This record gives sequence, C-alpha cells and structure tokens, in this order.
Amino acid sequence: MIMVKTTPVAKEKETPKQIAKKLENMANRIINQIHKNIDPVFTTQQRGRSNVEFCEKTKLLKLGDKSTSRNFLNIGHAKKFMQTMMVTEKTHNYLKENKTASIREIYYELKHTLGKTKENTFEEQTESDSCIVDLEHSVNTIREKLNLHANPKGTLYGDITLVDKKHNNDQFNANKLGRGGWSIMSRLEPEEIEIKKVKADYLLVIETEAMYERLVEEGFAKKNKAILISTGGQAARGTRRLIHRIHSEQKLPVYVFTDGDPYGWYIYSVIKQGSMALAAHSNFLAVPEAKYIGMTLEDVETFGLENVTERMKDGDIKRAKEMLEYPWFQNKEWKAELKLALQKKIRIEQQALANKSLSFVADEYLPKKIKKKDFLP
Amino acid sequence: MIMVKTTPVAKEKETPKQIAKKLENMANRIINQIHKNIDPVFTTQQRGRSNVEFCEKTKLLKLGDKSTSRNFLNIGHAKKFMQTMMVTEKTHNYLKENKTASIREIYYELKHTLGKTKENTFEEQTESDSCIVDLEHSVNTIREKLNLHANPKGTLYGDITLVDKKHNNDQFNANKLGRGGWSIMSRLEPEEIEIKKVKADYLLVIETEAMYERLVEEGFAKKNKAILISTGGQAARGTRRLIHRIHSEQKLPVYVFTDGDPYGWYIYSVIKQGSMALAAHSNFLAVPEAKYIGMTLEDVETFGLENVTERMKDGDIKRAKEMLEYPWFQNKEWKAELKLALQKKIRIEQQALANKSLSFVADEYLPKKIKKKDFLP
Repeated sequence: MIMVKTTPVAKEKETPKQIAKKLENMANRIINQIHKNIDPVFTTQQRGRSNVEFCEKTKLLKLGDKSTSRNFLNIGHAKKFMQTMMVTEKTHNYLKENKTASIREIYYELKHTLGKTKENTFEEQTESDSCIVDLEHSVNTIREKLNLHANPKGTLYGDITLVDKKHNNDQFNANKLGRGGWSIMSRLEPEEIEIKKVKADYLLVIETEAMYERLVEEGFAKKNKAILISTGGQAARGTRRLIHRIHSEQKLPVYVFTDGDPYGWYIYSVIKQGSMALAAHSNFLAVPEAKYIGMTLEDVETFGLENVTERMKDGDIKRAKEMLEYPWFQNKEWKAELKLALQKKIRIEQQALANKSLSFVADEYLPKKIKKKDFLP
Repeated sequence: MIMVKTTPVAKEKETPKQIAKKLENMANRIINQIHKNIDPVFTTQQRGRSNVEFCEKTKLLKLGDKSTSRNFLNIGHAKKFMQTMMVTEKTHNYLKENKTASIREIYYELKHTLGKTKENTFEEQTESDSCIVDLEHSVNTIREKLNLHANPKGTLYGDITLVDKKHNNDQFNANKLGRGGWSIMSRLEPEEIEIKKVKADYLLVIETEAMYERLVEEGFAKKNKAILISTGGQAARGTRRLIHRIHSEQKLPVYVFTDGDPYGWYIYSVIKQGSMALAAHSNFLAVPEAKYIGMTLEDVETFGLENVTERMKDGDIKRAKEMLEYPWFQNKEWKAELKLALQKKIRIEQQALANKSLSFVADEYLPKKIKKKDFLP
C-alpha cells in the first residue's frame, strides 16, 4: 500500500470526451512506466469506513484523501491489475462508440480463457465490479459517466417534461402517461436526458410503489403541484441521480416519505447525505437539503395509529441503535425519534394511514405536514 | 367441508356494476339464510394441487369443480366468515365509489379492535389476503375486477398506443417516452386502460431489465417491429394481464426470452399456461400460444458459450426434475432441453450473449431465431 495525498474533484459537467481523455491519460502514464522499465502502478482512492468522512460544511458523506495503489510486478496484484486494464479499455471503447452496458454485460464481454491456459480473465462478476469501482474512483467520476449502469428501478410522475436526446429527441411529460408514469432509466446523464421543464412546487420521494399509486389515484400531484418519484425500497442509482438533478437544476425542495422504521430512515439518509459505499459520489447523487416528512412515531400518537403499528424486529432495533451514533443524525429531532422508536419498539408503515381512510394521506396527512413545515431535518 | 358441483365461468367483459351485483347476490343469499334461521354459509372454489388440472384442450391450468364452504355457526369458521364479509363489503364500496386499493391498504383499512374487547379483526395481512382469494374465487373473477391490486413491476416499450380513461384520457405511445418506457400499472382492466393501436409484428417478453435496456439501446424494437415488455423476474399480475390483453386483443404472437435455467423456464411456463396458485384465473392472464425463444442449452453449443455458463445449484436441479414431470412439458423439445440441463448441470444467462458482442443479441441471435421459427413450444 502506498499512501498518496490526492485531492479528487469529481465534476458534474465532464463530457464523455473528457472522461475518455482521463482514461487515456491514465493508460499513457502506465505505458510510459513500462517504457522506462518502471513497475507499472495503478492508483485509486481508498474506500471503506476508515476513509469515509461526514463533511459538516456540505452535509455530505465524502471520501478522505487516502489512496491505494496496485503494482503489476507484485504477484498478489498482477491479475487484478490486468483486469483493471481490461475494464479501462472496454469502458474507453464504450465512450468512443457511444455505447452503454450493464455491469453484468461488461463482465460477460470480458470473460474469456487466456490463450491455451485454463486461466479465465474473470471468474465472478464481483471481480469486474470491483475493478469498475476502482476505475471510477481512480479517474474521479461515476460509473454512469463511464457508460456503465446497474438495473433500473423507480417511477416518475407529475408535470415534468424530459427530452431523451439519444432517442429521437423524444419529449414527454410525466403527467400525461396515464397513471403508470415513466419508468426511470438506470442511467440518465445530462448530455442524454434533459430536464426541460418542471411545473411544481416540490418533489415528493416515496418508498413504496403502492403509496405512489395511492397518491396518483387521489390526484395528489395536480392538487398540490408536486412531482412524485417512487423508489420501490432503497433507491437505485438512476433514481438517486434523477432526484439529485431535479433538485439541483430546478431548485425544487425534496421531501422524503417512507415507512417509519430504520429501513425507511436509512433510505432517507442515503438520499440526503449519500451512502458509505458511494461516499465519493455524494455530490452526484445526494440532496443534503432534503427533508423527512414521515412516517414518524409521533404520527402514531397524533393520528391514533397504535392499532396498526408492528413490533420492531431484532434487526430493526440493532439498526436504530447504530443510527443513533451516526454523525448526521446528531440533532435533537432525529435523536428524539430514534429514542422513541427504541423505547416503544414499534414501526409504522406508510400504508397504515389507510386505517383512517384511503384518501387521508392525500387530503390531510401530507398537505398539513407540508403547510406546517412539520419535517424532520 | 361441503362439496358442491359448480361450473364457474369467469368473464373478461364483466363491468364493475356486474361484479358489484354478484357481491350483492352473494350477500343477499347469506342475509336470507339468517332470516330463515339457517346457519349462514359462504361457498368458494377449492384451491391447491388436488383441484388443479391441466386442460389439454385449452392448454391452460385451470381449477377443477370442487368447492369448499365456511359456516358462520362453526366456531372454527366464524372469524374467517366475519373477515370475508368485511372484505366483501369493502370491495363492494370500492366498486361503487370507483376507488381502487392495494391488498396492503385493504388490510389496514379493515384492521381494528372489536368493541371493548382486545380482539382485532385482522392480525396479519395474510388473513385478509386469503379472504380476497376466497372472494375472487367465490364470485368468479380476478381481484383486479374487485378494484384490488398488488405491487406493480415491469416496463413497456415500442409502437403501442394506450389510453388511460381514468386519467384525462391520456393517450401515449410507448415508443415516444425516451428509452425509459412506460411503467406498467398493477391493474389495467379494459374499461380503464384501452389498447388503442399497435404497430408491431410480435411481442417480446424479456426476463431481465438489463436485457430490455440492451435491446432498447440497439434499436431492436423499431428494426424488428417488436413490442418489448420486461418483467424484472417473475411477471407481476399487471404485466401478465397486459401480455394477455395485447395477445388476445391485437392477435400479436408472444415470444418469451429468459435466462436458460429452471427459474427462467418457470417464468415462461406461468406466462404460457398460468400458475398453480392462480389456476382459476388463467383465462385472464395466460397466453397458451406463447413460444419460448431462449436461452436454451443448445444455444450454448451453437454459439460457443461454454465459457460463460454457470453451474446449476441444487435448487435448480431439483426444480428441473420437477418440471420434467409437469404435464405441460410433456413434449419432445422440452423433455430434451430439461434432460440436457440435468445432464450438463449448467445454466446460461441472457446477458451471457454479451460475450459475443453487445449487439449480438439484437443483430443476430433474436432475428435469426425468429426468422427460422427456432422456438421451444
């Protein structure tokens, strides 16, 4: 391990050409080392908890300045070095040829048996995945800008007009697609998908598809001038990227609506300040100004929902205790909420609001909370 | 258990008003029994393997003619009887008020403590779910026509125009929504969602979202006049309903493209002849004319993909052995495929075709198979 002080600056506006250039520069450095008979070295940012920081100023999780290196002439590094170069070449091709691929496809594309040996370039997708992570951290960008993507998940609804520049310049309004809404892509970088126009006062991010369908059925988006995004559980990268872009390009407030339990709160936390695993990419994905609208354990008392709560499982209790320690939950509102959860040992789902009436969430719960700015920070 | 011979005929064209009438008739029978001092009885179709048949004529899984009853004055039946009546009343309200609800919401809506007791109407969603199943089988319809739905999943892409009559008569073409496509609703009955126009030669159903994105990127739908539907694993009910409707209303052939493994083949099997659990609803959901396009173990040899196969797990092997016994796989093509799988003990993913090249699936694999009609039945 060589520690090198680096000051990575990941940039939103880098073009595919600029990213390709970064890959070329990295490859050229290595070629030069070979020509000079120096052991070729690949350097990237160190990841993992020991290099993750919570930045009080930006309120984002970020990587520290530790780096890590891999040497070709080290027998323990050589195979990974080769794999990383293969991934680099392939993504460079994607950028040049204007192609994109899933992380599963690049694994299959690169997998083959070397010469007349029985040695495969890759045995498992985890190997190519880790090279992708090394590479994005090395050239300081996100995999989406290397034309890679994971599976899509999530739905968009409301008065927002998008243009897909890579698909006949399709222009469509997510308010005019019936109740289904637009299926959010796994990858939506600004040079391809343009957010043309948004007519709304805020963006409501919803954990469950079923609650999203409820709000659509109730006409909530129109009545309240809201854009709706359902994440279907933990938000996929494409969905987080879209939330980030709508917020930062259109200056729209973001309110997050999840189940009242540690899993829901963690979904919020990832949308707001990023995740440990992707700490280097928070500035592409996170929305530090996001607010939490519910469900809270205070709601249980306020609305008399004791009857439709559930017992927390052991895993939930463990998770809530961990969250109490996170630097970004060190404020009186969240500490009170987490302590109340640990004291009562109950959880409450979004859909439990149906116990009042099907339309209660749309007619009373959300509008009142938004009017009173009754949020957790 | 009282066995009553019933000849259920579930009808596609029943209106919400007609379904509501069926619920009223059922309730009136019970009220009459009460007035006559007869023990009230609720009758529904018996489910489970002992009453599931494979119909050789229609090539569909269907329920036999066994029925089962629940008596109010039987202490073992009384609570479930009450629960079933609650679900009946609630869905009747939905139909009258033109509301829909998720199966989680109806559970929460109905859950409450009875009078001054500590007895809850429902403790778990599984209890209301099973009443819903009883009810749909009793009045011989699908839950979607009782205005109930589960979670949505699946995406639609291609030159197909839909109209959402319950949402400003939105008319949209799934070819003009960028690469994201339309997010398939959990519930799309003909009286609400109209399939207005389809310009395509066939419908391709795809197991993985990532393969769907590949085919979209390659412009496959346009070049081959295809509609694409991705199921994201096992197809959700809404997605199966849409596949069924496109096939039966538009007379479009359906080709199913999954991973080459027992899980993928089961996805195909459910789309084609229905599932054991929903045997009564096959005529709403299944497409007996569907064909299987791949992946097959023959493909592994034909295209030299040995390198990118994976070992079957024990569960896969067990599953393949079971499938060999299913009546609907008793044809020489499927028996050969399943036997080859059990002999080689390997599986092959759709995305493994990327080993040839990213565009291979779109430029060669699928078009050639379709041209040669190289399908499994």
